[in-house]
Amino acid sequence: MATLKDVAEKAGVTVTTVSRVINNRGYIGEQTRQKVQEAMKELHYQPNELARSLSMKRTNTIGIIVPHIVHPYFAKLISELESEAAAHKYKILLCNTKAETKKELEYIDMCKSNRVSGIVLCSRNVDIKKMKNLDIPVITIERYLDAGTVGIECDNYQGGRMATEHLIEAGCRNLIHLSGIKNENMPADARAEGFRDVCKEHGIQHREMLSNNKIYSTMDYHEYIRQAIREVPDVDGIFASSDLIAAQTIQVCNELNLKIPDQIKIVGFDDVDIAKYTTPMITTIHQPVHEMASWAIEFIEKSLRKEVIPEQLKLPVSLVKRQTT
Amino acid sequence: MATLKDVAEKAGVTVTTVSRVINNRGYIGEQTRQKVQEAMKELHYQPNELARSLSMKRTNTIGIIVPHIVHPYFAKLISELESEAAAHKYKILLCNTKAETKKELEYIDMCKSNRVSGIVLCSRNVDIKKMKNLDIPVITIERYLDAGTVGIECDNYQGGRMATEHLIEAGCRNLIHLSGIKNENMPADARAEGFRDVCKEHGIQHREMLSNNKIYSTMDYHEYIRQAIREVPDVDGIFASSDLIAAQTIQVCNELNLKIPDQIKIVGFDDVDIAKYTTPMITTIHQPVHEMASWAIEFIEKSLRKEVIPEQLKLPVSLVKRQTT
Repeated sequence: MATLKDVAEKAGVTVTTVSRVINNRGYIGEQTRQKVQEAMKELHYQPNELARSLSMKRTNTIGIIVPHIVHPYFAKLISELESEAAAHKYKILLCNTKAETKKELEYIDMCKSNRVSGIVLCSRNVDIKKMKNLDIPVITIERYLDAGTVGIECDNYQGGRMATEHLIEAGCRNLIHLSGIKNENMPADARAEGFRDVCKEHGIQHREMLSNNKIYSTMDYHEYIRQAIREVPDVDGIFASSDLIAAQTIQVCNELNLKIPDQIKIVGFDDVDIAKYTTPMITTIHQPVHEMASWAIEFIEKSLRKEVIPEQLKLPVSLVKRQTT
Repeated sequence: MATLKDVAEKAGVTVTTVSRVINNRGYIGEQTRQKVQEAMKELHYQPNELARSLSMKRTNTIGIIVPHIVHPYFAKLISELESEAAAHKYKILLCNTKAETKKELEYIDMCKSNRVSGIVLCSRNVDIKKMKNLDIPVITIERYLDAGTVGIECDNYQGGRMATEHLIEAGCRNLIHLSGIKNENMPADARAEGFRDVCKEHGIQHREMLSNNKIYSTMDYHEYIRQAIREVPDVDGIFASSDLIAAQTIQVCNELNLKIPDQIKIVGFDDVDIAKYTTPMITTIHQPVHEMASWAIEFIEKSLRKEVIPEQLKLPVSLVKRQTT
């Protein structure tokens, strides 16, 4: 690979001059600038970002830590974060923890060693003590962390209310909520609260079913859904806490010959691509993932400029009516 | 952030000694080693990967360039590449081109500037001239590039044959292939060849429908599928060149009241998660994505060790029977 010195020799100038052209610093005559640029082009010279990062003590990189890449919610979130980061000249260092605490800690250390500009944390179990002394802005999305990190979430409680009200308005009188993970304290748990409150307000029969960590890590909810329907055989409405669970609920209803939406109605959560690819398409609660990603990158930039940023940001959700209701 | 000097002061040793402990070089007494390690822990010292990379002239990073992150095939490929890279102590720099040539070239330059150890290229339009003088191993997956890059692909031709033979064995006599993109020369085009050859061998009526770049970038195939069925109204079997297209074919058949698999049978390609989440689940051709990712990382390592690596690697596919046939 060509060096600064090679370029200087080719252009017949000093290394300092080449460096000035690259960094656009000090006075350089137009003719000299052109000579240097031509030499760089001919030699396929690439400025060394590493050296630049070392002098800045950080890289233009943002670490993204997720529990799953293939989960449609995280795939969408990663995609939105990458777009937004690229628009602000940041690169993405992608870390997949497979929901393992050990991997989460390793990845945080890796981000520190690599002097990232910020971390967007969408994983679950990180030890809060580890987050102190980080000196790097950490933004969480849909996760709680209280050690000086910034949390972005959607209005999960309102989302739970909207989904439940929609099912009741559509005529459902016996509801199930296929909800979050047992013993994990997450913002998404508020979806269940919204469900519960609306059912109580309307005097509607209802049942909540918690899933577990094992199901979450395999993403296979079929048996859990079958079990829920076995326990409440006359269920006529299901609010699933993700579109992924809703898609699998459609499959289980199909197995059991339950017609959607005639005999049973389904509302999902997230509004990710899979909600548009199932048959029927899923009525769901739209999470503003694009806006959440955009705020995350903005908060990292503000934090690097030492500006005060909010501790918590909650964004509104909306109902997207499709074919399962 | 704590520096090498802070650690040395805390441990009461020289900077050279700390550096020796970190790099495991030269003789260090056990007591000294422990003192240094305790000081590092107390000060939350993180070795600076940037400085290390600068002296090695490259980072332990692999650039992955894809046209879509949310497309289920690329989401799976990224996930597999991340796992395999992490197992070999590499980090992933993720680049999403949205199928734009301009972005592809920018990302390649970015990978060069950041001194990545290798590039896995799954994007489409890269200008071959740009690939020369790269000095970085480039592995393509399911893409052709002839300028000294290494190509990994699955046996698309056999996959096309298997899918078509399966439809014919299941009784189909009038087939459509929903295939690749017009004017793009890609390994996946061999799926259509396999389809064509088997139909001719069996004297089966058949038609191929090409999609276009615009459809590919939006990932919305509904109108293209409707058009195909309008042109061949008595079609009884469809071979879709991806599970994403197959999922949308199920939706269109549902709109048109065509019963699957009784009136019409569908085979997809890829065997990604979406094939398991649709109703009915999709019979498909399994691409060995895990193995493809694993070879890609291995080839990058071999290339860095200056070992000879194959120019092309083709992996076998298999049929996974589910509910659409």
